[in-house]
Amino acid sequence: MTAAHEKGFFTEENSVEVVTGRNADARNERLKFAMEVITRKLHEAVKEIEPTQDEWFEAIMFLTRTGHLCTEWRQEFILLSDVLGVSMLVDAINNRKPSGASESTVLGPFHVADAPELPMGANICLDHKGEDMVISGRVLDTRGRPLADAVLDVWQANDEGFYDVQQKGIQPDFNLRGVFRTGPDGRYWFRAVKPKYYPIPDDGTVGKLLGALGRHPYRPAHLHYIIRADGFETLTTHIFDPDDPYINSDAVFGVKESLLAEFRKVDDPKRASALEFAGPFWEVEHDFVLAPE
Amino acid sequence: MTAAHEKGFFTEENSVEVVTGRNADARNERLKFAMEVITRKLHEAVKEIEPTQDEWFEAIMFLTRTGHLCTEWRQEFILLSDVLGVSMLVDAINNRKPSGASESTVLGPFHVADAPELPMGANICLDHKGEDMVISGRVLDTRGRPLADAVLDVWQANDEGFYDVQQKGIQPDFNLRGVFRTGPDGRYWFRAVKPKYYPIPDDGTVGKLLGALGRHPYRPAHLHYIIRADGFETLTTHIFDPDDPYINSDAVFGVKESLLAEFRKVDDPKRASALEFAGPFWEVEHDFVLAPE
Repeated sequence: MTAAHEKGFFTEENSVEVVTGRNADARNERLKFAMEVITRKLHEAVKEIEPTQDEWFEAIMFLTRTGHLCTEWRQEFILLSDVLGVSMLVDAINNRKPSGASESTVLGPFHVADAPELPMGANICLDHKGEDMVISGRVLDTRGRPLADAVLDVWQANDEGFYDVQQKGIQPDFNLRGVFRTGPDGRYWFRAVKPKYYPIPDDGTVGKLLGALGRHPYRPAHLHYIIRADGFETLTTHIFDPDDPYINSDAVFGVKESLLAEFRKVDDPKRASALEFAGPFWEVEHDFVLAPE
Repeated sequence: MTAAHEKGFFTEENSVEVVTGRNADARNERLKFAMEVITRKLHEAVKEIEPTQDEWFEAIMFLTRTGHLCTEWRQEFILLSDVLGVSMLVDAINNRKPSGASESTVLGPFHVADAPELPMGANICLDHKGEDMVISGRVLDTRGRPLADAVLDVWQANDEGFYDVQQKGIQPDFNLRGVFRTGPDGRYWFRAVKPKYYPIPDDGTVGKLLGALGRHPYRPAHLHYIIRADGFETLTTHIFDPDDPYINSDAVFGVKESLLAEFRKVDDPKRASALEFAGPFWEVEHDFVLAPE
Protein backbone atom coordinates (compact mmCIF):
# COMPACT_ATOMS: atom_id res chain seq x y z
CA MET A 1 0.00 0.00 0.00
CA THR A 2 1.40 3.41 -0.93
CA ALA A 3 1.46 6.14 1.68
CA ALA A 4 -1.89 7.93 1.77
CA HIS A 5 -0.38 11.31 1.06
CA GLU A 6 0.94 10.14 -2.31
CA LYS A 7 -2.65 9.89 -3.53
CA GLY A 8 -3.62 13.13 -1.80
CA PHE A 9 -5.89 11.44 0.73
CA PHE A 10 -6.51 13.29 3.99
CA THR A 11 -4.56 12.31 7.11
CA GLU A 12 -3.95 13.99 10.48
CA GLU A 13 -0.44 14.81 9.29
CA ASN A 14 -1.16 16.34 5.87
CA SER A 15 -4.61 17.79 6.64
CA VAL A 16 -3.74 21.43 5.91
CA GLU A 17 -1.97 20.73 2.62
CA VAL A 18 -4.75 18.46 1.37
CA VAL A 19 -7.53 20.95 2.13
CA THR A 20 -5.76 24.09 0.89
CA GLY A 21 -4.39 22.17 -2.12
CA ARG A 22 -7.96 22.03 -3.43
CA ASN A 23 -8.02 25.81 -3.88
CA ALA A 24 -5.62 25.92 -6.85
CA ASP A 25 -8.32 27.36 -9.11
CA ALA A 26 -9.70 29.93 -6.65
CA ARG A 27 -11.33 32.95 -8.31
CA ASN A 28 -9.06 35.45 -6.61
CA GLU A 29 -5.71 35.32 -4.88
CA ARG A 30 -6.84 37.27 -1.84
CA LEU A 31 -9.61 34.78 -1.00
CA LYS A 32 -7.22 31.89 -1.68
CA PHE A 33 -4.65 33.39 0.70
CA ALA A 34 -7.22 34.13 3.43
CA MET A 35 -8.68 30.61 3.24
CA GLU A 36 -5.17 29.11 3.35
CA VAL A 37 -4.46 30.96 6.61
CA ILE A 38 -7.92 30.28 8.10
CA THR A 39 -7.72 26.56 7.28
CA ARG A 40 -4.19 26.26 8.67
CA LYS A 41 -5.01 28.07 11.94
CA LEU A 42 -8.28 26.15 12.33
CA HIS A 43 -6.49 22.80 11.93
CA GLU A 44 -3.74 23.92 14.32
CA ALA A 45 -6.42 24.79 16.89
CA VAL A 46 -8.19 21.42 16.45
CA LYS A 47 -4.90 19.54 16.77
CA GLU A 48 -4.01 21.43 19.94
CA ILE A 49 -7.46 21.19 21.58
CA GLU A 50 -8.22 17.63 20.39
CA PRO A 51 -11.98 18.13 20.83
CA THR A 52 -14.21 15.13 21.45
CA GLN A 53 -17.05 14.63 18.98
CA ASP A 54 -19.40 16.10 21.62
CA GLU A 55 -17.23 19.19 22.07
CA TRP A 56 -17.07 19.67 18.29
CA PHE A 57 -20.86 19.49 18.16
CA GLU A 58 -21.12 21.97 21.03
CA ALA A 59 -19.02 24.41 18.97
CA ILE A 60 -21.24 23.82 15.91
CA MET A 61 -24.35 24.55 18.00
CA PHE A 62 -22.75 27.66 19.56
CA LEU A 63 -22.16 29.08 16.06
CA THR A 64 -25.66 28.03 14.99
CA ARG A 65 -27.35 29.72 17.95
CA THR A 66 -25.16 32.80 17.47
CA GLY A 67 -26.31 32.99 13.85
CA HIS A 68 -29.96 32.60 14.85
CA LEU A 69 -29.64 35.59 17.23
CA CYS A 70 -28.53 37.88 14.37
CA THR A 71 -31.31 40.10 13.06
CA GLU A 72 -31.55 43.48 11.40
CA TRP A 73 -31.29 44.90 14.94
CA ARG A 74 -28.73 42.69 16.58
CA GLN A 75 -25.35 41.36 15.43
CA GLU A 76 -24.20 38.59 17.79
CA PHE A 77 -21.22 37.64 15.57
CA ILE A 78 -19.87 41.21 15.78
CA LEU A 79 -20.32 40.97 19.54
CA LEU A 80 -18.37 37.68 19.50
CA SER A 81 -15.63 39.35 17.45
CA ASP A 82 -15.63 42.21 19.99
CA VAL A 83 -15.29 40.11 23.15
CA LEU A 84 -12.54 37.96 21.60
CA GLY A 85 -10.52 41.09 20.79
CA VAL A 86 -10.80 40.47 17.04
CA SER A 87 -12.61 43.76 16.30
CA MET A 88 -9.97 45.79 18.13
CA LEU A 89 -7.20 43.84 16.40
CA VAL A 90 -8.69 44.61 12.97
CA ASP A 91 -9.03 48.25 14.07
CA ALA A 92 -5.40 48.33 15.19
CA ILE A 93 -4.13 46.79 11.95
CA ASN A 94 -6.11 49.23 9.81
CA ASN A 95 -5.23 52.30 11.85
CA ARG A 96 -1.52 52.24 12.51
CA LYS A 97 -0.92 55.92 13.14
CA PRO A 98 2.19 58.03 12.59
CA SER A 99 3.89 59.16 15.78
CA GLY A 100 1.84 61.78 17.61
CA ALA A 101 -1.50 61.16 15.89
CA SER A 102 -4.50 60.25 18.07
CA GLU A 103 -5.33 56.57 18.22
CA SER A 104 -8.57 55.03 17.01
CA THR A 105 -10.91 52.58 18.67
CA VAL A 106 -14.10 50.67 17.81
CA LEU A 107 -17.09 52.45 16.23
CA GLY A 108 -19.65 50.49 18.23
CA PRO A 109 -23.28 49.90 17.25
CA PHE A 110 -24.82 53.19 18.47
CA HIS A 111 -23.66 55.75 15.91
CA VAL A 112 -26.49 57.58 14.10
CA ALA A 113 -25.73 59.08 10.69
CA ASP A 114 -27.87 62.23 10.73
CA ALA A 115 -27.23 63.91 14.09
CA PRO A 116 -27.79 67.70 13.95
CA GLU A 117 -24.93 70.18 13.38
CA LEU A 118 -24.84 72.45 16.43
CA PRO A 119 -23.17 75.77 17.31
CA MET A 120 -20.02 75.43 19.40
CA GLY A 121 -20.87 75.33 23.11
CA ALA A 122 -24.29 73.74 22.64
CA ASN A 123 -25.56 71.39 25.34
CA ILE A 124 -26.18 67.99 23.73
CA CYS A 125 -27.97 66.76 26.85
CA LEU A 126 -31.57 67.59 25.97
CA ASP A 127 -33.25 66.26 29.12
CA HIS A 128 -30.82 67.77 31.69
CA LYS A 129 -30.54 64.40 33.43
CA GLY A 130 -27.20 63.62 35.07
CA GLU A 131 -24.09 65.48 36.19
CA ASP A 132 -23.23 68.49 34.01
CA MET A 133 -20.02 68.30 32.01
CA VAL A 134 -18.15 70.64 29.70
CA ILE A 135 -15.78 69.17 27.08
CA SER A 136 -13.24 71.19 25.15
CA GLY A 137 -10.01 70.91 23.23
CA ARG A 138 -8.39 71.35 19.84
CA VAL A 139 -8.12 69.43 16.59
CA LEU A 140 -4.50 69.56 15.39
CA ASP A 141 -2.24 68.16 12.73
CA THR A 142 0.85 66.12 13.70
CA ARG A 143 2.94 69.31 13.73
CA GLY A 144 0.61 70.85 16.33
CA ARG A 145 -1.10 73.28 13.94
CA PRO A 146 -4.86 73.87 14.52
CA LEU A 147 -7.22 72.48 11.90
CA ALA A 148 -10.08 74.72 10.76
CA ASP A 149 -13.29 73.18 9.39
CA ALA A 150 -12.66 69.89 11.17
CA VAL A 151 -16.02 68.18 11.81
CA LEU A 152 -16.54 66.36 15.14
CA ASP A 153 -19.41 63.89 15.30
CA VAL A 154 -19.98 63.19 19.01
CA TRP A 155 -22.24 60.73 20.82
CA GLN A 156 -22.43 59.20 24.27
CA ALA A 157 -24.56 57.20 26.71
CA ASN A 158 -26.46 59.03 29.46
CA ASP A 159 -25.93 58.91 33.22
CA GLU A 160 -27.62 55.51 33.37
CA GLY A 161 -25.52 53.96 30.59
CA PHE A 162 -28.13 54.12 27.81
CA TYR A 163 -27.95 55.70 24.35
CA ASP A 164 -31.03 57.57 23.02
CA VAL A 165 -31.65 54.81 20.42
CA GLN A 166 -31.92 52.27 23.25
CA GLN A 167 -34.56 54.37 25.05
CA LYS A 168 -36.83 55.71 22.32
CA GLY A 169 -39.72 57.57 23.97
CA ILE A 170 -37.76 57.86 27.23
CA GLN A 171 -34.84 59.98 26.02
CA PRO A 172 -35.48 62.79 23.47
CA ASP A 173 -34.43 61.98 19.89
CA PHE A 174 -30.77 62.85 19.26
CA ASN A 175 -30.15 63.17 22.99
CA LEU A 176 -26.40 63.32 23.70
CA ARG A 177 -25.47 63.57 20.00
CA GLY A 178 -24.13 66.49 18.01
CA VAL A 179 -21.93 67.55 15.13
CA PHE A 180 -19.51 70.48 15.63
CA ARG A 181 -17.27 72.31 13.17
CA THR A 182 -14.02 74.00 14.25
CA GLY A 183 -13.05 77.58 13.40
CA PRO A 184 -9.53 78.80 12.46
CA ASP A 185 -8.25 78.17 16.03
CA GLY A 186 -9.09 74.44 15.73
CA ARG A 187 -10.95 74.64 19.05
CA TYR A 188 -14.15 72.78 19.93
CA TRP A 189 -16.32 72.84 23.01
CA PHE A 190 -19.73 71.60 24.02
CA ARG A 191 -21.75 70.74 27.11
CA ALA A 192 -23.08 67.30 28.04
CA VAL A 193 -23.40 65.02 31.11
CA LYS A 194 -20.95 62.61 32.66
CA PRO A 195 -21.42 59.23 30.89
CA LYS A 196 -21.66 55.93 32.77
CA TYR A 197 -20.38 52.41 32.15
CA TYR A 198 -22.85 50.00 30.57
CA PRO A 199 -23.08 46.29 29.64
CA ILE A 200 -22.92 45.00 26.07
CA PRO A 201 -26.03 42.90 25.25
CA ASP A 202 -25.44 39.84 27.45
CA ASP A 203 -28.63 37.79 27.09
CA GLY A 204 -27.34 35.77 24.11
CA THR A 205 -24.64 33.22 23.31
CA VAL A 206 -21.87 35.78 23.77
CA GLY A 207 -23.19 36.79 27.19
CA LYS A 208 -23.36 33.11 28.20
CA LEU A 209 -19.78 32.60 27.00
CA LEU A 210 -18.58 35.62 29.00
CA GLY A 211 -20.36 34.21 32.06
CA ALA A 212 -18.77 30.78 31.63
CA LEU A 213 -15.36 32.45 31.26
CA GLY A 214 -15.90 34.43 34.49
CA ARG A 215 -15.95 37.72 32.57
CA HIS A 216 -18.28 40.73 33.09
CA PRO A 217 -20.02 42.43 30.14
CA TYR A 218 -19.24 46.09 30.99
CA ARG A 219 -17.68 48.86 28.96
CA PRO A 220 -16.14 51.76 30.96
CA ALA A 221 -17.74 55.21 30.54
CA HIS A 222 -16.68 56.98 27.33
CA LEU A 223 -17.57 59.57 24.71
CA HIS A 224 -17.53 58.62 21.02
CA TYR A 225 -15.99 60.76 18.29
CA ILE A 226 -15.69 60.61 14.54
CA ILE A 227 -13.44 63.47 13.41
CA ARG A 228 -13.12 64.42 9.74
CA ALA A 229 -10.97 67.08 8.05
CA ASP A 230 -10.01 67.49 4.39
CA GLY A 231 -6.60 66.01 3.65
CA PHE A 232 -6.56 63.94 6.86
CA GLU A 233 -7.50 60.40 7.80
CA THR A 234 -10.90 60.18 9.44
CA LEU A 235 -10.49 59.29 13.13
CA THR A 236 -13.03 57.05 14.88
CA THR A 237 -12.29 56.99 18.58
CA HIS A 238 -13.44 57.37 22.19
CA ILE A 239 -12.22 59.22 25.21
CA PHE A 240 -12.52 57.32 28.48
CA ASP A 241 -13.01 58.17 32.13
CA PRO A 242 -9.83 56.83 33.79
CA ASP A 243 -11.63 56.54 37.16
CA ASP A 244 -14.31 54.19 35.81
CA PRO A 245 -14.46 50.86 37.73
CA TYR A 246 -14.13 48.96 34.43
CA ILE A 247 -11.33 51.03 32.89
CA ASN A 248 -8.89 48.09 33.06
CA SER A 249 -11.36 45.46 31.89
CA ASP A 250 -13.41 46.87 28.97
CA ALA A 251 -15.44 43.86 27.71
CA VAL A 252 -14.48 44.72 24.11
CA PHE A 253 -10.87 45.85 24.74
CA GLY A 254 -11.44 49.36 23.36
CA VAL A 255 -9.35 51.26 25.94
CA LYS A 256 -5.94 52.62 24.99
CA GLU A 257 -3.59 54.53 27.27
CA SER A 258 -3.71 57.59 25.00
CA LEU A 259 -7.52 57.68 25.07
CA LEU A 260 -7.72 58.27 28.82
CA ALA A 261 -8.98 61.79 29.42
CA GLU A 262 -8.99 63.65 32.71
CA PHE A 263 -12.46 64.20 34.21
CA ARG A 264 -12.03 67.10 36.68
CA LYS A 265 -14.75 68.02 39.16
CA VAL A 266 -15.14 71.84 39.25
CA ASP A 267 -16.82 73.67 42.11
CA ASP A 268 -16.83 77.28 40.88
CA PRO A 269 -20.21 79.11 41.04
CA LYS A 270 -19.06 81.84 38.61
CA ARG A 271 -17.97 79.38 35.91
CA ALA A 272 -21.06 77.22 36.56
CA SER A 273 -23.29 80.21 36.09
CA ALA A 274 -21.52 81.23 32.88
CA LEU A 275 -22.07 77.70 31.56
CA GLU A 276 -25.72 77.77 32.74
CA PHE A 277 -25.03 74.86 35.12
CA ALA A 278 -26.81 74.78 38.50
CA GLY A 279 -23.79 73.78 40.59
CA PRO A 280 -20.52 71.84 40.51
CA PHE A 281 -19.75 70.24 37.15
CA TRP A 282 -17.19 68.01 35.37
CA GLU A 283 -14.60 69.38 33.01
CA VAL A 284 -12.73 67.44 30.32
CA GLU A 285 -10.08 68.84 28.03
CA HIS A 286 -8.77 66.68 25.22
CA ASP A 287 -6.92 67.47 21.98
CA PHE A 288 -7.16 65.26 18.89
CA VAL A 289 -4.32 64.96 16.39
CA LEU A 290 -5.23 63.83 12.87
CA ALA A 291 -2.84 61.88 10.62
CA PRO A 292 -2.34 63.19 7.07
CA GLU A 293 -4.07 61.18 4.37
CA MET B 1 3.53 57.66 29.78
CA THR B 2 3.88 54.04 30.93
CA ALA B 3 3.83 51.29 28.33
CA ALA B 4 0.24 50.27 27.58
CA HIS B 5 0.86 46.63 28.51
CA GLU B 6 1.73 47.60 32.08
CA LYS B 7 -1.91 48.61 32.58
CA GLY B 8 -3.21 45.62 30.62
CA PHE B 9 -4.56 47.71 27.76
CA PHE B 10 -4.93 45.94 24.43
CA THR B 11 -2.28 46.41 21.74
CA GLU B 12 -1.43 44.57 18.52
CA GLU B 13 1.57 43.06 20.32
CA ASN B 14 -0.10 41.79 23.52
CA SER B 15 -3.58 41.09 22.10
CA VAL B 16 -3.63 37.35 22.91
CA GLU B 17 -2.38 37.74 26.48
CA VAL B 18 -4.81 40.58 27.24
CA VAL B 19 -7.86 38.70 25.94
CA THR B 20 -7.05 35.29 27.42
CA GLY B 21 -5.88 36.95 30.65
CA ARG B 22 -9.53 37.85 31.30
CA ASN B 23 -10.46 34.17 31.66
CA ALA B 24 -8.72 33.63 35.00
CA ASP B 25 -12.03 32.83 36.70
CA ALA B 26 -13.44 30.55 33.98
CA ARG B 27 -15.95 27.98 35.24
CA ASN B 28 -13.99 25.02 33.95
CA GLU B 29 -10.41 24.39 32.88
CA ARG B 30 -11.36 22.66 29.63
CA LEU B 31 -13.34 25.67 28.36
CA LYS B 32 -10.58 28.01 29.51
CA PHE B 33 -7.99 25.95 27.63
CA ALA B 34 -10.09 25.71 24.46
CA MET B 35 -10.79 29.47 24.44
CA GLU B 36 -7.10 30.20 25.00
CA VAL B 37 -6.20 28.16 21.90
CA ILE B 38 -9.10 29.54 19.81
CA THR B 39 -8.27 33.15 20.73
CA ARG B 40 -4.56 32.67 20.02
CA LYS B 41 -5.13 31.02 16.63
CA LEU B 42 -7.80 33.57 15.67
CA HIS B 43 -5.46 36.46 16.46
CA GLU B 44 -2.60 34.74 14.60
CA ALA B 45 -4.87 34.40 11.56
CA VAL B 46 -5.97 38.08 11.73
CA LYS B 47 -2.34 39.22 12.07
CA GLU B 48 -1.29 37.13 9.07
CA ILE B 49 -4.25 38.05 6.83
CA GLU B 50 -4.47 41.71 7.93
CA PRO B 51 -8.10 42.00 6.79
CA THR B 52 -9.52 45.37 5.81
CA GLN B 53 -12.60 46.52 7.74
CA ASP B 54 -14.67 45.51 4.68
CA GLU B 55 -13.15 42.02 4.58
CA TRP B 56 -13.79 41.60 8.31
CA PHE B 57 -17.42 42.58 7.75
CA GLU B 58 -17.67 40.14 4.83
CA ALA B 59 -16.52 37.37 7.19
CA ILE B 60 -19.10 38.46 9.81
CA MET B 61 -21.86 38.36 7.17
CA PHE B 62 -20.69 34.96 5.87
CA LEU B 63 -21.07 33.52 9.38
CA THR B 64 -24.41 35.29 9.82
CA ARG B 65 -25.85 33.93 6.57
CA THR B 66 -24.48 30.47 7.37
CA GLY B 67 -26.28 30.61 10.72
CA HIS B 68 -29.52 31.72 9.09
CA LEU B 69 -29.40 28.69 6.74
CA CYS B 70 -29.33 26.27 9.69
CA THR B 71 -32.71 24.70 10.45
CA GLU B 72 -33.94 21.47 11.95
CA TRP B 73 -33.34 19.97 8.50
CA ARG B 74 -30.11 21.59 7.39
CA GLN B 75 -26.81 22.18 9.16
CA GLU B 76 -24.71 24.61 7.13
CA PHE B 77 -22.05 24.97 9.87
CA ILE B 78 -21.46 21.19 9.84
CA LEU B 79 -21.14 21.44 6.05
CA LEU B 80 -18.60 24.25 6.53
CA SER B 81 -16.70 22.08 9.02
CA ASP B 82 -16.82 19.24 6.46
CA VAL B 83 -15.47 21.17 3.45
CA LEU B 84 -12.67 22.73 5.54
CA GLY B 85 -11.52 19.27 6.64
CA VAL B 86 -12.37 19.99 10.29
CA SER B 87 -14.93 17.19 10.61
CA MET B 88 -12.48 14.61 9.26
CA LEU B 89 -9.73 15.96 11.52
CA VAL B 90 -11.95 15.60 14.59
CA ASP B 91 -12.85 12.10 13.38
CA ALA B 92 -9.16 11.23 12.93
CA ILE B 93 -8.23 12.53 16.39
CA ASN B 94 -11.04 10.60 18.06
CA ASN B 95 -10.46 7.37 16.16
CA ARG B 96 -6.77 6.65 16.19
CA LYS B 97 -6.86 2.90 15.60
CA PRO B 98 -4.42 0.23 16.67
CA SER B 99 -2.44 -1.28 13.83
CA GLY B 100 -4.62 -3.47 11.64
CA ALA B 101 -8.02 -2.12 12.70
CA SER B 102 -10.30 -0.65 10.01
CA GLU B 103 -10.30 3.13 9.79
CA SER B 104 -13.31 5.34 10.41
CA THR B 105 -14.73 8.20 8.40
CA VAL B 106 -17.57 10.75 8.68
CA LEU B 107 -21.09 9.67 9.63
CA GLY B 108 -22.78 12.09 7.20
CA PRO B 109 -26.31 13.44 7.53
CA PHE B 110 -28.26 10.52 5.96
CA HIS B 111 -28.17 7.84 8.64
CA VAL B 112 -31.59 6.66 9.84
CA ALA B 113 -31.83 5.11 13.29
CA ASP B 114 -34.53 2.49 12.78
CA ALA B 115 -33.63 0.65 9.56
CA PRO B 116 -35.00 -2.94 9.52
CA GLU B 117 -32.88 -5.94 10.55
CA LEU B 118 -32.70 -8.24 7.51
CA PRO B 119 -31.63 -11.83 6.90
CA MET B 120 -28.16 -12.23 5.47
CA GLY B 121 -28.22 -12.01 1.68
CA ALA B 122 -31.27 -9.72 1.51
CA ASN B 123 -31.48 -7.22 -1.33
CA ILE B 124 -31.68 -3.75 0.22
CA CYS B 125 -32.54 -2.21 -3.17
CA LEU B 126 -36.33 -2.22 -2.99
CA ASP B 127 -37.08 -0.61 -6.37
CA HIS B 128 -34.60 -2.65 -8.50
CA LYS B 129 -33.26 0.56 -10.06
CA GLY B 130 -29.58 0.57 -11.04
CA GLU B 131 -26.79 -1.95 -11.59
CA ASP B 132 -27.00 -5.01 -9.35
CA MET B 133 -24.25 -5.50 -6.79
CA VAL B 134 -23.37 -8.13 -4.20
CA ILE B 135 -21.30 -7.15 -1.15
CA SER B 136 -19.66 -9.61 1.19
CA GLY B 137 -16.85 -9.99 3.69
CA ARG B 138 -16.05 -10.68 7.30
CA VAL B 139 -16.00 -8.82 10.60
CA LEU B 140 -12.78 -9.68 12.45
CA ASP B 141 -10.80 -8.73 15.53
CA THR B 142 -7.25 -7.43 15.20
CA ARG B 143 -5.90 -10.99 15.49
CA GLY B 144 -7.96 -12.05 12.46
CA ARG B 145 -10.56 -14.00 14.44
CA PRO B 146 -14.18 -13.79 13.14
CA LEU B 147 -16.66 -11.90 15.31
CA ALA B 148 -20.08 -13.48 15.82
CA ASP B 149 -23.10 -11.27 16.60
CA ALA B 150 -21.48 -8.21 15.04
CA VAL B 151 -24.21 -5.85 13.81
CA LEU B 152 -23.70 -4.02 10.50
CA ASP B 153 -25.92 -1.01 9.87
CA VAL B 154 -25.62 -0.28 6.13
CA TRP B 155 -26.93 2.60 3.97
CA GLN B 156 -26.12 4.06 0.59
CA ALA B 157 -27.29 6.42 -2.18
CA ASN B 158 -28.98 5.00 -5.27
CA ASP B 159 -27.74 4.92 -8.87
CA GLU B 160 -28.60 8.61 -9.25
CA GLY B 161 -26.79 9.71 -6.09
CA PHE B 162 -29.86 10.17 -3.84
CA TYR B 163 -30.68 8.65 -0.46
CA ASP B 164 -34.26 7.50 0.23
CA VAL B 165 -34.76 10.35 2.73
CA GLN B 166 -33.97 12.86 -0.04
CA GLN B 167 -36.61 11.35 -2.33
CA LYS B 168 -39.57 10.57 -0.12
CA GLY B 169 -42.41 9.34 -2.32
CA ILE B 170 -40.00 8.57 -5.17
CA GLN B 171 -37.88 5.88 -3.49
CA PRO B 172 -39.55 3.35 -1.18
CA ASP B 173 -39.05 3.96 2.57
CA PHE B 174 -35.84 2.34 3.86
CA ASN B 175 -34.61 1.83 0.30
CA LEU B 176 -30.92 0.87 0.31
CA ARG B 177 -30.78 0.48 4.10
CA GLY B 178 -30.48 -2.60 6.25
CA VAL B 179 -29.12 -4.06 9.46
CA PHE B 180 -27.33 -7.44 9.37
CA ARG B 181 -26.02 -9.67 12.16
CA THR B 182 -23.05 -12.00 11.68
CA GLY B 183 -23.02 -15.68 12.61
CA PRO B 184 -20.10 -17.59 14.18
CA ASP B 185 -18.08 -17.32 10.93
CA GLY B 186 -18.13 -13.49 11.14
CA ARG B 187 -19.35 -13.35 7.53
CA TYR B 188 -21.86 -10.87 6.11
CA TRP B 189 -23.37 -10.55 2.66
CA PHE B 190 -26.20 -8.62 1.07
CA ARG B 191 -27.37 -7.41 -2.33
CA ALA B 192 -27.75 -3.78 -3.43
CA VAL B 193 -27.00 -1.55 -6.45
CA LYS B 194 -23.83 0.25 -7.45
CA PRO B 195 -23.91 3.69 -5.72
CA LYS B 196 -23.10 6.93 -7.55
CA TYR B 197 -21.24 10.11 -6.62
CA TYR B 198 -23.41 13.02 -5.46
CA PRO B 199 -23.05 16.68 -4.49
CA ILE B 200 -23.29 17.96 -0.94
CA PRO B 201 -25.99 20.68 -0.65
CA ASP B 202 -24.39 23.49 -2.64
CA ASP B 203 -27.07 26.17 -2.82
CA GLY B 204 -25.97 27.92 0.40
CA THR B 205 -23.00 29.87 1.73
CA VAL B 206 -20.78 26.77 1.73
CA GLY B 207 -21.63 26.01 -1.92
CA LYS B 208 -20.82 29.62 -2.85
CA LEU B 209 -17.52 29.38 -0.99
CA LEU B 210 -16.62 26.16 -2.80
CA GLY B 211 -17.46 27.86 -6.12
CA ALA B 212 -15.29 30.88 -5.30
CA LEU B 213 -12.45 28.53 -4.37
CA GLY B 214 -12.75 26.66 -7.68
CA ARG B 215 -13.87 23.49 -5.87
CA HIS B 216 -16.63 21.04 -6.87
CA PRO B 217 -19.21 19.80 -4.32
CA TYR B 218 -19.07 16.04 -5.11
CA ARG B 219 -18.51 13.03 -2.89
CA PRO B 220 -17.27 9.88 -4.63
CA ALA B 221 -19.59 6.83 -4.61
CA HIS B 222 -19.57 4.94 -1.32
CA LEU B 223 -21.46 2.66 1.07
CA HIS B 224 -21.92 3.65 4.73
CA TYR B 225 -21.40 1.29 7.64
CA ILE B 226 -21.79 1.44 11.39
CA ILE B 227 -20.45 -1.81 12.85
CA ARG B 228 -21.02 -2.74 16.48
CA ALA B 229 -19.84 -5.75 18.50
CA ASP B 230 -19.70 -6.28 22.26
CA GLY B 231 -16.26 -5.55 23.65
CA PHE B 232 -15.17 -3.60 20.56
CA GLU B 233 -15.15 0.04 19.52
CA THR B 234 -18.06 0.95 17.28
CA LEU B 235 -16.78 1.64 13.77
CA THR B 236 -18.43 4.34 11.61
CA THR B 237 -17.00 4.18 8.14
CA HIS B 238 -17.50 3.99 4.35
CA ILE B 239 -16.15 1.86 1.58
CA PHE B 240 -15.42 3.72 -1.65
CA ASP B 241 -15.39 2.92 -5.34
CA PRO B 242 -11.75 3.54 -6.34
CA ASP B 243 -12.77 4.15 -9.99
CA ASP B 244 -15.11 7.02 -9.13
CA PRO B 245 -14.20 10.28 -10.96
CA TYR B 246 -14.12 12.13 -7.61
CA ILE B 247 -12.15 9.53 -5.63
CA ASN B 248 -9.16 11.90 -5.27
CA SER B 249 -11.20 15.00 -4.52
CA ASP B 250 -14.01 14.11 -2.07
CA ALA B 251 -15.56 17.48 -1.13
CA VAL B 252 -15.50 16.49 2.56
CA PHE B 253 -12.13 14.63 2.60
CA GLY B 254 -13.70 11.34 3.77
CA VAL B 255 -11.60 9.01 1.57
CA LYS B 256 -8.78 6.99 3.13
CA GLU B 257 -6.51 4.58 1.29
CA SER B 258 -7.68 1.66 3.43
CA LEU B 259 -11.35 2.38 2.65
CA LEU B 260 -10.96 1.76 -1.09
CA ALA B 261 -12.81 -1.42 -1.99
CA GLU B 262 -12.57 -3.29 -5.26
CA PHE B 263 -15.73 -3.11 -7.39
CA ARG B 264 -15.45 -6.07 -9.83
CA LYS B 265 -17.80 -6.45 -12.83
CA VAL B 266 -18.94 -10.08 -13.06
CA ASP B 267 -20.43 -11.56 -16.22
CA ASP B 268 -21.40 -15.07 -15.08
CA PRO B 269 -25.01 -16.13 -15.90
CA LYS B 270 -24.95 -18.98 -13.37
CA ARG B 271 -23.90 -16.78 -10.46
CA ALA B 272 -26.27 -14.04 -11.62
CA SER B 273 -29.13 -16.49 -11.66
CA ALA B 274 -28.26 -17.80 -8.19
CA LEU B 275 -28.28 -14.20 -6.92
CA GLU B 276 -31.58 -13.51 -8.76
CA PHE B 277 -29.86 -10.86 -10.91
CA ALA B 278 -30.93 -10.46 -14.56
CA GLY B 279 -27.41 -10.17 -16.02
CA PRO B 280 -23.88 -8.96 -15.29
CA PHE B 281 -23.41 -7.52 -11.82
CA TRP B 282 -20.86 -5.87 -9.52
CA GLU B 283 -19.09 -7.70 -6.75
CA VAL B 284 -17.42 -6.14 -3.72
CA GLU B 285 -15.59 -8.04 -1.00
CA HIS B 286 -14.41 -6.16 2.05
CA ASP B 287 -13.40 -7.25 5.56
CA PHE B 288 -13.76 -5.00 8.60
CA VAL B 289 -11.44 -5.25 11.60
CA LEU B 290 -12.73 -3.88 14.92
CA ALA B 291 -10.47 -2.44 17.60
CA PRO B 292 -10.93 -3.75 21.17
CA GLU B 293 -12.67 -1.35 23.53
